[in-house]
Amino acid sequence: MVRPKAVVLLSGGIDSCTTLSLALADGYDVTAITVNYGQKHSIEMEAADLITSYYGIPHIIVRIPGLADVLNSALTGHSELPLDEDPLRPGIPASWVPQRNLIMLAIAAGIAENLKAERIYIGVNQVDYSGYPDCRQEFITRAYEAINMASKRYAETGFIMDIATPIINMTKAEVIKLGTQFKAPLHLTRSCYMGHEKACGRCDSCQIRKNAFKEAGIKDPTQYED
Amino acid sequence: MVRPKAVVLLSGGIDSCTTLSLALADGYDVTAITVNYGQKHSIEMEAADLITSYYGIPHIIVRIPGLADVLNSALTGHSELPLDEDPLRPGIPASWVPQRNLIMLAIAAGIAENLKAERIYIGVNQVDYSGYPDCRQEFITRAYEAINMASKRYAETGFIMDIATPIINMTKAEVIKLGTQFKAPLHLTRSCYMGHEKACGRCDSCQIRKNAFKEAGIKDPTQYED
Repeated sequence: MVRPKAVVLLSGGIDSCTTLSLALADGYDVTAITVNYGQKHSIEMEAADLITSYYGIPHIIVRIPGLADVLNSALTGHSELPLDEDPLRPGIPASWVPQRNLIMLAIAAGIAENLKAERIYIGVNQVDYSGYPDCRQEFITRAYEAINMASKRYAETGFIMDIATPIINMTKAEVIKLGTQFKAPLHLTRSCYMGHEKACGRCDSCQIRKNAFKEAGIKDPTQYED
Repeated sequence: MVRPKAVVLLSGGIDSCTTLSLALADGYDVTAITVNYGQKHSIEMEAADLITSYYGIPHIIVRIPGLADVLNSALTGHSELPLDEDPLRPGIPASWVPQRNLIMLAIAAGIAENLKAERIYIGVNQVDYSGYPDCRQEFITRAYEAINMASKRYAETGFIMDIATPIINMTKAEVIKLGTQFKAPLHLTRSCYMGHEKACGRCDSCQIRKNAFKEAGIKDPTQYED
């Protein structure tokens, strides 16, 4: 029997790695997609490669080298904005990259349409990262409508592409518990924004990760700098 | 007085060149954006460069080299699908690139957000290219909603980014008349899908162009192969 296909957006962090494990558990023939828009942390790209090798699934890497130059943000390589040091600071963090999730979802949808995949999985999370407007369900719903209205399959056959956001309402600790339950290779994931060989342990992403493993009661497999 | 900013998606064809002339006539401080997703016709890219040089405006080129490999279509360089030869064939043309306009709009919106631009112009047209689902107003409206729901400016200040589609309901002949009226450098534009030095004169895009100039009663400045 031919399994239905799905594509999974994989950044190399805990959320997308857990989401990938859920897509595989759902029985899909999965292709992972990593969009490299010029993040500082290319080590996350290596993590995505290790994760897809672990599962033995196809991995499509889409590079948009110019984007780093034109989306001025602390996460891309050409910016002078400092990263936030306080993860609990209210508002939208400096690590914000404008329209990142819509760019990634549109690319994933184009690939999915070409592969005749049924579903896009994305590991957005509106709990821990509530400061990012494009991690909220309201945004995902609008993106879903735009993607289907642009779709040849929808226009010709009425087929509706689904966007699955299985961890959108979970805390990071719940994601870690779920990923561990589904045997996701969380030891291969990377969260640190700094892009050093070892995680810095100090940036907002490292602090959220540390606290979440602690809260989940699961040993943190991450090697930190200190 | 500081003029408000806008970004214009510029492919190098008649529609986007005319749209650019309208954005300038509207009084905006315009940045042109060209997305190179691996089109066969890189000559269109050169046309976009000539047009922005003509106007003396900034031109951002975003390259997504990987996309040609993964969006199998007759327009990208790695496909074996033939281009349609009959422009009046019903249905969606083989030159269709899945999610092209959403990918381009999302990138344009990210850049616009960074530049603090007020408006995105896109030269989609639902008359001559009615076979493309992502050229219809229904799609543009959904993309507009997704872009604003993803926007930091909207989340923080309620600012709504506008998507202007000034030629969406015009025939190609009407676009040519309007572009000529607004002194758009249509002689610099390219339409041909073939990507040869001269336009082929035979592909669906060339045939639509030829007929449109004829219908508009304006001399076609294009040099065709025969």
